[in-house]
Amino acid sequence: MTNLDLIKGISISSPAKIILLVIDGLGGLPDPQTGRSELETARIPNLDALASSGICGMADPIAPGITPGSGPGHLAVFGYDPVSSNIGRGVLEAVGIDIELQPGDVAARGNFCTIDGKGIITDRRAGRISNEKCAELCQLLDGMSIDGVKILVYPVREHRFVAIFRGENLLADVSESDPSRTGVAPLPVTALSPEAGKLADIANRFAVEAKTLLAGHHPANMVLLRGFARKPQFPTMQEIYKLNPLAIAVYPMYRGLAWLVGMEVARTGSTLEDEFDTLKQNYNNYDFFFLHVKWTDSAGEDGDFARKVKVLEQVDAALPGLTGLEPDVLVVTGDHSTPAVLKGHSWHSVPVLLCSEYCRTDAVTEFSESAFLVGGLGRIHATDIMPLAMANAQKLTKFGA
Amino acid sequence: MTNLDLIKGISISSPAKIILLVIDGLGGLPDPQTGRSELETARIPNLDALASSGICGMADPIAPGITPGSGPGHLAVFGYDPVSSNIGRGVLEAVGIDIELQPGDVAARGNFCTIDGKGIITDRRAGRISNEKCAELCQLLDGMSIDGVKILVYPVREHRFVAIFRGENLLADVSESDPSRTGVAPLPVTALSPEAGKLADIANRFAVEAKTLLAGHHPANMVLLRGFARKPQFPTMQEIYKLNPLAIAVYPMYRGLAWLVGMEVARTGSTLEDEFDTLKQNYNNYDFFFLHVKWTDSAGEDGDFARKVKVLEQVDAALPGLTGLEPDVLVVTGDHSTPAVLKGHSWHSVPVLLCSEYCRTDAVTEFSESAFLVGGLGRIHATDIMPLAMANAQKLTKFGA
Repeated sequence: MTNLDLIKGISISSPAKIILLVIDGLGGLPDPQTGRSELETARIPNLDALASSGICGMADPIAPGITPGSGPGHLAVFGYDPVSSNIGRGVLEAVGIDIELQPGDVAARGNFCTIDGKGIITDRRAGRISNEKCAELCQLLDGMSIDGVKILVYPVREHRFVAIFRGENLLADVSESDPSRTGVAPLPVTALSPEAGKLADIANRFAVEAKTLLAGHHPANMVLLRGFARKPQFPTMQEIYKLNPLAIAVYPMYRGLAWLVGMEVARTGSTLEDEFDTLKQNYNNYDFFFLHVKWTDSAGEDGDFARKVKVLEQVDAALPGLTGLEPDVLVVTGDHSTPAVLKGHSWHSVPVLLCSEYCRTDAVTEFSESAFLVGGLGRIHATDIMPLAMANAQKLTKFGA
Repeated sequence: MTNLDLIKGISISSPAKIILLVIDGLGGLPDPQTGRSELETARIPNLDALASSGICGMADPIAPGITPGSGPGHLAVFGYDPVSSNIGRGVLEAVGIDIELQPGDVAARGNFCTIDGKGIITDRRAGRISNEKCAELCQLLDGMSIDGVKILVYPVREHRFVAIFRGENLLADVSESDPSRTGVAPLPVTALSPEAGKLADIANRFAVEAKTLLAGHHPANMVLLRGFARKPQFPTMQEIYKLNPLAIAVYPMYRGLAWLVGMEVARTGSTLEDEFDTLKQNYNNYDFFFLHVKWTDSAGEDGDFARKVKVLEQVDAALPGLTGLEPDVLVVTGDHSTPAVLKGHSWHSVPVLLCSEYCRTDAVTEFSESAFLVGGLGRIHATDIMPLAMANAQKLTKFGA
């Protein structure tokens, strides 16, 4: 991976515009019936035309064989080392419900659970209480202040919530209170380094308070906490690339990931068309656009090959809305593969296409995994995508004299 | 390279089976007469069929331009960084004669040599004494105990032996007593760090004792020691991959390398057929099989193009014995290239083939260096092979949320 400090040292601001279209879970595997992947099955003439005019290749999100979560997958595409920049689960859960974390905040995932008269956990999910009940109980716990640390509690869904610990000197290097099984009591949160003692103490006192407040709310009469994580301090995309970036994404997790690397996050509707419209409306005010399409991944996760094909065709049909803007650089890629036959994220490399006046076009004429194998980009790391996009937009000066 | 700690954090145990067939020195170069490499010359229909159904590529054992020895070549294929995990020569020589080193052991390569009346070396190889004489003299020196350090001496071949220093606090950071030329006296072994003083002292006293014991055995009347190395402490393949691995190899060096990374080493016969039979007999009891074929490399080292072709055809003929077992993942690769025209190991990248239900087949239909260039794996590091095999066996969970 190219060092971000190197990029930071040679990046320059310019009016040139870059569009990064991330089609979530883009890569696939052949349908055993037809021998053709989702991309090879879909009718995608606009993507094929881009493949003809652009340069193509395959990208590894992390490394060969490694299946990325959404966090590492996106960070890599944004140019960040996905291993050293891995985001803790509490933070991902928080940004996934649109919470704007502040520097120093520690976020944890929480469960309402059921304990018996002796304090033993009998149900780690409190019978999966309703979203409404969850919101009601979160309101009960929200806003506590312990030794100057404010604790904010937000509902997620059913028995799940997020707890934000906001105060001075909170380090997240602590153990979890969730024992991950029933028949035992919740565990005390313990500091795994001396500096984390303060958070461990606050978290334990929060649990004691919560138990008191929830006493009358059986089955949701206790809380379990896990995935404590501090808001990461990444260098922003403005700092590294000197870009003025806008993120357009329907789902909160991706809006949150973009926000964590410093992008402005656009208000947008809930459909593909809304997203493309939002980009068009904001086109004059930014020089970098991250446009996230979620539904390919959802269809892949559901194992719905035909639906993934259909979403690809919808994206293809919407593409003229982007190409018509004539951006200096257009990149189309994914954060990872989600083959319908695997019903989940996978380790397979991901197609990446780059179009620009100076891209050095290759002979590929079809947008697919197999066609891209012999593309001009070869097999690259996903972290190479941003430097390539920047270079093609002539936003990187020479390294060394 | 993917960090082994990362792999360790996401690997899971499962019944899925992986066979790793390492054809030593697999890669070649064209015969100047025909323009075809050993693989392109050989009739290998079974390997071609695997290439058609699997995914293919080329692997660099260490890095472009670097020719690996057998140690680094195999460590890379096992997933270990071949540079930081490099094994000292004394240890390689010891495992190469089936010695089971204990933790803390220091091994050195030894030569019997000839010195004159003034102690000056006149022949560094003692006239290449017979294997029988070597064994007799080793017996004479074997079992010495100096300051609580036991010194074990094993014959290798002709004038060569291995000395094992077994005791507390022995660090191998010492100079060699072999001056690598005649006309001078053997050098004193000196400590290159303060902690290595003990071993240097013991080694020098061993040499003095040896000189006395060998006085009547001209031309083998002195010893030279080099390549002092401590048994490395690698994380085992069980720890990293949660595999239960079996190694099948005829030659001791490869058995030893497998043993050093924690594999169980099967008893097997001396032929290719014996090795394949041994795998079959043990198939139910392990989930990972490293099968090593040596004779391609031997033929390459001898510059015998036709013999290397013949061995490739023998391997091909034996292949149905592996594919018939229907392993979840079958990998065929080499530890390095040994082109017959170069009569030795080379830096050239090595064909790698992976077959599994989820491998994302490419268009390659022929098992050869040139055909694999456009394979779906592209050009990878040899250290990527194990993560890919693990992923295809669905033995790696997602990295990050």
